[in-house]
Amino acid sequence: MTDTTGFEAALRAKGASYHIHHPFNRMLNEGRASPAQIRGWVANRFYYQINIPVKDAAVIANCEDRDVRREWVRRILDHDGWEQDSGGIEAWVRLGEAVGLTRESLWSLSDVLPGVRFAVDAYVNFARRQPWQESVCASLTELFAPQIHKDRLASWPLHYPWIDTSGLDYFRKRIPLASRDVEHGLRVTLAYFDTRVLQDRALEILQFKLDILWAMLDAIQLRYGLTDE
Amino acid sequence: MTDTTGFEAALRAKGASYHIHHPFNRMLNEGRASPAQIRGWVANRFYYQINIPVKDAAVIANCEDRDVRREWVRRILDHDGWEQDSGGIEAWVRLGEAVGLTRESLWSLSDVLPGVRFAVDAYVNFARRQPWQESVCASLTELFAPQIHKDRLASWPLHYPWIDTSGLDYFRKRIPLASRDVEHGLRVTLAYFDTRVLQDRALEILQFKLDILWAMLDAIQLRYGLTDE
Repeated sequence: MTDTTGFEAALRAKGASYHIHHPFNRMLNEGRASPAQIRGWVANRFYYQINIPVKDAAVIANCEDRDVRREWVRRILDHDGWEQDSGGIEAWVRLGEAVGLTRESLWSLSDVLPGVRFAVDAYVNFARRQPWQESVCASLTELFAPQIHKDRLASWPLHYPWIDTSGLDYFRKRIPLASRDVEHGLRVTLAYFDTRVLQDRALEILQFKLDILWAMLDAIQLRYGLTDE
Repeated sequence: MTDTTGFEAALRAKGASYHIHHPFNRMLNEGRASPAQIRGWVANRFYYQINIPVKDAAVIANCEDRDVRREWVRRILDHDGWEQDSGGIEAWVRLGEAVGLTRESLWSLSDVLPGVRFAVDAYVNFARRQPWQESVCASLTELFAPQIHKDRLASWPLHYPWIDTSGLDYFRKRIPLASRDVEHGLRVTLAYFDTRVLQDRALEILQFKLDILWAMLDAIQLRYGLTDE
């Protein structure tokens, strides 16, 4: 198929496997998480956050298209910060402080579980080794990110009044950025994966990335437990 | 030795092997080059220019230090351009146009010689595979770059009045940027290579990078010839 509409629909249908449906995420957003479970999640997810600009630099390091690089470099600036903007990693540190973690304990990575490391490292290594268009495709889990951020912004202040809402700035900021990123990523993906064989490959890649996010929560759930409904 | 002063002096002494002393570069800056020789140089050096941001992204993709990444990303922006700034690659294209090449012929890379490709690719692959501190060290040929740019700005308008001087903007812009970059690169290198064994390794790395620049001119000279003094 070179049916772009059908292909885009198939990519979007992958949202069914997004970690928004993971039991640990449902527990978090439905208000059943203890402070220790929230802290465990924030400390572990931090390892993902600090690796995102590294992954994005790997995409650029494989990309001979200057226009794409000029667009993609924004992601590095978004997360690492740039001039006045202290960036997404720093916003995540503030989330950590708001849930009762210290800056030092976050940066020490001492709570990061092996399963989380392996999943995140698998994503970075994918970006290092695969053609940049495949990494762009993998980034399309951003299609589903605005909803998960909106859920957090809506439910956390309700269920967890002990968390200062300024700590939720990361989620607030990501909504427009995720939409901008996905617009570009989708354009690249629809243009590059233009045969049936390539489109099947694209769906596999997106599943791989969904598996990474899911596996992180599996590891976190196994360590911090699940509070039943 | 952990003698920083002696180490810095040894790095600077490597300037003796900088391609400023290569016969082809001396010919260019002493006014003995034909339009065809100048065009050959500009078209081949373009391959280096377009690979610099890719190399710099590889450095960031290997770097777990957010502060270093925030500093290093400027180099990508400098070359690829960013918002209003059209960047160094575009400035090089304008140099190409000023010497009589078309934008299309430059971007086609059809004049790029195998020896030039192999040398530039060796540098990019080094940055992909080696620790980021080694790539920072390799970048220290920038120590010697302001002089080569100043020479071009001083001598080209004199010897080659047929080249529109606005075409030389790339050289003009690089002087302050090279100074800024080298200040950071030198700071990282002096801090990281802090034993005699590591300092010897640093000098080897800098020689490797000097060899890359020299080998490019060897390949260019072999193809476009040398006009004797």
